[in-house]
Amino acid sequence: MDGVLADVYEQFLKYEETETGFRQKIENLYGKPEHVAFKNGANYVLTKGFFRNAPVINGSIPAVYRLKDQYELYIVSAATEFPQSMEEKYYWLNEHFPFISWEQMVFCGLKSVVKGDIMIDDHFKNLDSFEGRTILFTQPHNYGLDNKTHTRVFNWQEVLDLLL
Amino acid sequence: MDGVLADVYEQFLKYEETETGFRQKIENLYGKPEHVAFKNGANYVLTKGFFRNAPVINGSIPAVYRLKDQYELYIVSAATEFPQSMEEKYYWLNEHFPFISWEQMVFCGLKSVVKGDIMIDDHFKNLDSFEGRTILFTQPHNYGLDNKTHTRVFNWQEVLDLLL
Repeated sequence: MDGVLADVYEQFLKYEETETGFRQKIENLYGKPEHVAFKNGANYVLTKGFFRNAPVINGSIPAVYRLKDQYELYIVSAATEFPQSMEEKYYWLNEHFPFISWEQMVFCGLKSVVKGDIMIDDHFKNLDSFEGRTILFTQPHNYGLDNKTHTRVFNWQEVLDLLL
Repeated sequence: MDGVLADVYEQFLKYEETETGFRQKIENLYGKPEHVAFKNGANYVLTKGFFRNAPVINGSIPAVYRLKDQYELYIVSAATEFPQSMEEKYYWLNEHFPFISWEQMVFCGLKSVVKGDIMIDDHFKNLDSFEGRTILFTQPHNYGLDNKTHTRVFNWQEVLDLLL
């Protein structure tokens, strides 16, 4: 969800700019883990509304809408580290992806517990433990890093080109 | 979680008794789905505190404590139908099973999305879609129903006898 459907980088940048008056350039964050890129990021994610008000990643709504008709689709989000985030993520999905039902939502800790044929994710740790086909969704933290076992995409159009 | 770790029947019975002044006998509920057994059950589960204050099923704490040392253990709970329940269930687990970390929690809709070697559950619908070994934990709603493909247990000692 984060980094694939929800634009958490925009939230991090905005929260940091509000706090420090300075907005980092996205190209300076390439290859850096989020906790390195945003010094106070651990506080931002605990702030009420951080997840609820995240912008939607460009193109994700029509793409997921098309994919759901051809695939048995689930939204799996690492969320239990921040328990307040689960309800926020639920209502965020309800608002932006109203065609996704509660049956299709999974809020978990480790994604190694889910099974499926295809996983689209921005984190190597999630894709590496997955048994099926893996698609790495480009985000600043994974930019330029080795991805020999996963198919890298840069946007949702590329996902559709692969899967439809 | 519900019906295996959390005693939701005790909650249903208590809420109904508070509302109607009448407490049903548990043996009258055998084989009845929960929504049939408790006329206003759909309202009770939406009440703040219903999940947070559920009693713990007898023997489950020491049993899970022992199992976690020998197994990679996850708590998987159908929870997204009632979004307010997720945070309640998280804190309920923190209180009663403090040795279970957020990494081991999964709050989902359909459990068909999880993989594993063994599932302990009280609902046929969850066990039927699971690929591994299945253990049916007896609860009033499944009492007396056919279980030819799942190993029925009546309490946590029987789970330990099977798995340790």
